[in-house]
Order: sequence, then C-alpha cells, then structure tokens
Amino acid sequence: MSELRQDPATKRWVIIAKERAKRPSDFVRKEPAPAVPEYAADCPFCPGNEALTPNEVFAYRDTAAGGWRLRVVPNKFAALAPDGDIAVEHPEIFTTMNGIGYHDVIIESPLHNETLGTMGREQCEEVVLACAERFAQLARQPHVRYVSIFRNHGRSAGTSLVHPHSQVIATPVVPAHARQEIEEARRYYDDRVRCVYCDILETELRLEARVILDTAHYLTIAPFAPRWPFEMKILPKRHNSSFAELSHGEVRGLAETLCGTLGRLHQAAGNPDYNLTLHTAPLHDSCEDYYHWHIEIYPRLATQAGFELGTGIFINTVFPEDTAAFLREALVECAVEHCAAPA
Amino acid sequence: MSELRQDPATKRWVIIAKERAKRPSDFVRKEPAPAVPEYAADCPFCPGNEALTPNEVFAYRDTAAGGWRLRVVPNKFAALAPDGDIAVEHPEIFTTMNGIGYHDVIIESPLHNETLGTMGREQCEEVVLACAERFAQLARQPHVRYVSIFRNHGRSAGTSLVHPHSQVIATPVVPAHARQEIEEARRYYDDRVRCVYCDILETELRLEARVILDTAHYLTIAPFAPRWPFEMKILPKRHNSSFAELSHGEVRGLAETLCGTLGRLHQAAGNPDYNLTLHTAPLHDSCEDYYHWHIEIYPRLATQAGFELGTGIFINTVFPEDTAAFLREALVECAVEHCAAPA
Repeated sequence: MSELRQDPATKRWVIIAKERAKRPSDFVRKEPAPAVPEYAADCPFCPGNEALTPNEVFAYRDTAAGGWRLRVVPNKFAALAPDGDIAVEHPEIFTTMNGIGYHDVIIESPLHNETLGTMGREQCEEVVLACAERFAQLARQPHVRYVSIFRNHGRSAGTSLVHPHSQVIATPVVPAHARQEIEEARRYYDDRVRCVYCDILETELRLEARVILDTAHYLTIAPFAPRWPFEMKILPKRHNSSFAELSHGEVRGLAETLCGTLGRLHQAAGNPDYNLTLHTAPLHDSCEDYYHWHIEIYPRLATQAGFELGTGIFINTVFPEDTAAFLREALVECAVEHCAAPA
Repeated sequence: MSELRQDPATKRWVIIAKERAKRPSDFVRKEPAPAVPEYAADCPFCPGNEALTPNEVFAYRDTAAGGWRLRVVPNKFAALAPDGDIAVEHPEIFTTMNGIGYHDVIIESPLHNETLGTMGREQCEEVVLACAERFAQLARQPHVRYVSIFRNHGRSAGTSLVHPHSQVIATPVVPAHARQEIEEARRYYDDRVRCVYCDILETELRLEARVILDTAHYLTIAPFAPRWPFEMKILPKRHNSSFAELSHGEVRGLAETLCGTLGRLHQAAGNPDYNLTLHTAPLHDSCEDYYHWHIEIYPRLATQAGFELGTGIFINTVFPEDTAAFLREALVECAVEHCAAPA
C-alpha cells in the first residue's frame, strides 16, 4: 500500500506510491550524457564572447586586466529590468505592475563544461560569494521586495545554455511560495514557540536515516515528504531567516556542502538535470523568529502531470530513506575531505 | 518592458516578458504530430484487451453483450487503493497516513487515436457523464475528502499511454491547492460579499478581449494572468461550488464547451500536449457562498524552471489577449454549431 506523507514545514502532502515503487538505482542515467567541450565558440558565456552579454555588473579576476574566473551580467532576455518607477494599476478587478526589477546571470566558470557538481571547492566558494554579494546589492535597491536565486541544470530543467550559470531575479513583489512557507512557519511557531526548520534539523540529525551530508554549518537531507525522486534540502544549522546575513565561515561552508551534495548527485545518480532554488525571507518584512532560509534541489526525474498541477500533491515513486542511503553511501570522488568517504 | 499581473482569484503573480515576447502562431507545432492508428494490439485500453485492466467499475455499452463505448477501471498502478481503514500516525514531528483512496481511469473511447479535441459532442458528453457519475460515487465513500479529475494529453504532459483517457483520484486529504484557492476566494467574499469567480465571469464577458468561447452554461477564457502560453479556464455561469451538482443541461453544455475549447486548441494550435484539471469544493467542507468550481487547461508549451518552482511566479511569453483572439478567430471545423464560425 502507498503512503501519504505530510511535509512538516509546508503541510504539503505527497504520495509515495508503492505500486510503482522503484529503487534509487532505477533512476541512474543508463547512457552517459554526451560529452561537452571545455570551450564552445558560439557560447555567449565562453571567454572571448564577453561582448555578447550586456555590460558586466561585476567579475572576479586574477588581475584587473587578466582573465575572469566568474562574471555577473544582466540577462540579455531579462524578465524584469530596473528602468523607471513602479506603477501599480487596478484595471477592473485586476492588478498589474510594470516589470521593474533585476534579472542577472552568474557565469560560474570560464569552462564551458564545468558544473557545480564537478568544480572544486574554491571555485564553488566564489559562486556562493558572488550570490551573497549580488543578493546584498539587490536587497538595497528601493523597489526590490524579494531576491530569488536559482540554478537550472540540463535541458529538462529549463536551461537553454549549457555553460554553467546561476540566475538572480529581484522582484517588486513577494512570491506566493515564500508567503505560503513563511505563513506555515509562523503557525508552527505560534503553536510551539519553535522554528519548524530547527525542529527538522534536530530530528533528522538524531534519526540519521535521511541525512545525506552533515558538515559544520549545514545539513543536507532527503526531506521526509519529497515531491521529486532524489529531492534534497540544505539547511543551515544556525537559525537565520535570511541569506543576507552569512558569516565568512558560512559562505565557505555552503561551498563545501554544495560541492559535496551536488557532487554526489552528479556522480552517484548519473548527472541528472535539476533545479536548485534558494528560499529566504522577503526584504522589509521580518520573520526572524520563525523562518529559516534554506536551499531546495529538485532533480527532474519525474514529470508533473495533471494531478500534481491540479492538486499540489505529488506522486513520488521512491522513498527518501532509500535515496539518502544511496547518496550517503556512494563512493564518490570529492576534494572535500568528509565527502570522499562513506558516512 | 515586461508586465507583472496578479490573478484575482489566487493572488498569484505572473510576469509577461516582453523581451521574450512571442506571437501565438510561434507556439503552433510546425511538424504535424506522428499519425496514430485507430487500434494498437499492445494497448491495454484497446478493445479485445479488457483483461489487461483491473475489473471494470462501470461501462457504457450499446447492449449488455455489445461493444463498449466507454469504460471506467481502476488504475493498474494505482497511487491509492480502497483497502482497509485510515491510519494516521505522528512519528516524531511528521504526519503519515496509509494510502487509502481510489485511482481510476476513464477510457474515453474504443478508438486508440481519438481525443477530447476531436471526438464528437455525443461521445464527449459520455465522458462528462462518466466523470460526474464516478465523482458522485466516490463522494459517498467514507474516507474520501477530495475527488480530483484530470487529463494528461501527450508525453510532455506526463502520459505514458496514448489511448484517450482521463483519471480520477480520490484522496483522504484536501489538497494544498484546493485549500489555497478556497482561502483566497473566502477572503475576497469577506471583503466584498461577492464570489471572485462570478466577478471574473461578469468582467470577462463585458470586456470580451480574453473570451475564447461563450455558450449557454459556460465561458472559456484565457485568464488575465496565465502561467502557461495558451492557458484556458472554463467557468460555469451558474455559481456553484461543486462539480457534484450539475444539471442535465450543464452536463450537455460542458461537453459542448470541452469539444469547442479543446477542438480549437487541437486544430488552431497544432494539438499541443496539455493537462486538464478540475477544481472543485472538498467534500464535507462547505464553501458554497464563495467558491466556484471550474476547469483549468495548461498546454505544455513552456518548461517550469527554477524560478517558477522556487517562487510560484511564472514567466509567460505571450499575452492572453493574443492567444484568446487567435483561438477565438481561428477557422476550425467543429460539429458544435457556434464553434464552427469565428466569434
């Protein structure tokens, strides 16, 4: 018989369908992905093609005139742009706003075939640093109410360019998903005077079954009620509602955790396509006591169909205890010391 | 510049991205879809293969011994099953429930290559009748709290079998999406003592720009803030919270509207993959005054990526006024009288 599970943070139900149950190894890509070259002449993110992107926001370079290691540029096909002032209108029963905001690309490496799951920790640290730096800049802009950072890896995850990159979109509104997560966290806090994410951290560390990677500052778990096969959640151990306030150690630690987490996914699960999303507090709307920023990773190993889109209930075919064990125990090569050995 | 639009019923924001703007015709499938035969020997839903499905729930036949026109059967790989009693458990901070429920398939036609967008109105009426009949049966089952009806058309919409079918899943919990929609409708009602869906109906009928099909009992619109290109909403003109209470005329009318709506999508937009989902009131949880059942259709003409999955804000690249005009004015062949001529 199937099992219904409710996520304690969002109260969303999922169905783990035993009739369709699979083993983690069933999801591993059978054919190796086609080889990608280190450099592609027609790639707008490859070195030499800098003129194909809009003017750089900032970059990390060895010397002022030297080659770049990472670039932040506006998205050429930006969904939002910072030109002008906010104009809210209410035609009839509707509400509209002009598309004021920011839409940037973080080009994570000069190498066309690199990815967060394979690059070294030092480079990954620069990606995290660039995210934190751009987050802080955008948080100071007057019309910005939410800064969303995300990464689309692979075609089925919606990326059109292979070259490793993350994206940052700063919106003048607070997204519905943030509102809903924060509202549920507030209810939990009002009931128990506890942060639900702190309770998840404490529980998962004690139970161990869903732990994938445990480092000084972060815990990577397969969540109790995952919507996607191999779904992962990265929780900072320090209670903190916003990504805006990371210490230097937390930046380094996040790089280590991303390296280890995505490295395991890449090597053990055969480099599946995935989306990575940052969940953080809105700006100018404090939820310090009860919200807890985190990262969610959704491998695109299943399709949302009518039931999922209509109800929000996902049917998953693999248990998180199994995917956690599979990733935790996989022998993967990793520069990060405690990633290399099975737990 | 892009435009942010908020859906008045759900309060969800979408971005209509002008920098990426497309015309409706850009979404039309360029190559015709591969031809599908009328009969496939290895299809479990084709006549002659009835033994490959679990025992029939009911069927529509010409005579008791004759061939069937429509069959309702349990899903062979059911996500939920009606065996046993509900057992809710609370291990640690989590909540689980055994997978009690129902998961049926409505085999809509004996013809392997038929679809709701091409079948005649009479056959479509039987599909609607079967949905209503099965909905009523499941609504009477003791543990059922929500009946979800949906249709996945095409591989990218998550279907594995081509043969035309819809699915019904009855869950022992109320889905998050239903709760959220109903909560927003309640707020609107508390503010204005009006149903938001009735206000949408009245407004769209008056403005005309987003109307795709207007029949006696239903209105098909491209919603003001669509998440998907060519997204459509079918609203019953009579305020009614639940699909459980359709009159005979409303069943006939829904068939006519589905025929006309999906026929236009099929013919004018080149038979795109889509998901169709019923949105209706939960059982034993009345929301009569402020909720309004309806159908949503999401053509799979874009990919949800990290931004959409993380925030719930969708980036759409085509205006609903344009897709509505494109579908409304398309010259399509249809047996339904007022579908055949442009509006």
